[in-house]
Amino acid sequence: MIRHTVVFRLKHPKGSAAEKKFLSDANLLASIPGVQAFEQLRQVSPKNDYHFGFSMEFADQKAYSGYNDHPDHVAFVRDRWIPEVEKFLEIDYVPLA
Amino acid sequence: MIRHTVVFRLKHPKGSAAEKKFLSDANLLASIPGVQAFEQLRQVSPKNDYHFGFSMEFADQKAYSGYNDHPDHVAFVRDRWIPEVEKFLEIDYVPLA
Repeated sequence: MIRHTVVFRLKHPKGSAAEKKFLSDANLLASIPGVQAFEQLRQVSPKNDYHFGFSMEFADQKAYSGYNDHPDHVAFVRDRWIPEVEKFLEIDYVPLA
Repeated sequence: MIRHTVVFRLKHPKGSAAEKKFLSDANLLASIPGVQAFEQLRQVSPKNDYHFGFSMEFADQKAYSGYNDHPDHVAFVRDRWIPEVEKFLEIDYVPLA
């Protein structure tokens, strides 16, 4: 199992229609083959300045690569992520043991 | 539900006995009241320079505060985290909706 997460903040004002639309449209990522346990999250720690997070799991590296290369993911990154996201950090986890 | 996560790197060399001991001893955090779904994780993305992560969930802010103030957590931070951790970032999530 690989858990792919990204914590981010948007360029849009908090609570704006543009923010809501970005988050709503991002649900398309959940339907890309290989994506499991897709979650949209609100980041609430005052110890960093990110506002949101996405988390998803893949069975293995092949499934993760298939997602990365999928045209729907490539288009989302190009058309929405890059223009609308101010700052982000990708963190990927596998079980320790 | 509040998911408390911390991504970090240790001062210890990778694969060292000191690294193993830190990770093993950190399991005591799982037995602090209120801690649910405790996970020790390996961070594998090349897009950041952290090596490990812990994740745990709390039912609510009261449970989270109880963990933060618990003597076993306070002692772990003082005696192990601060001396042995080189760099870390705390990220806390709640469901978006």
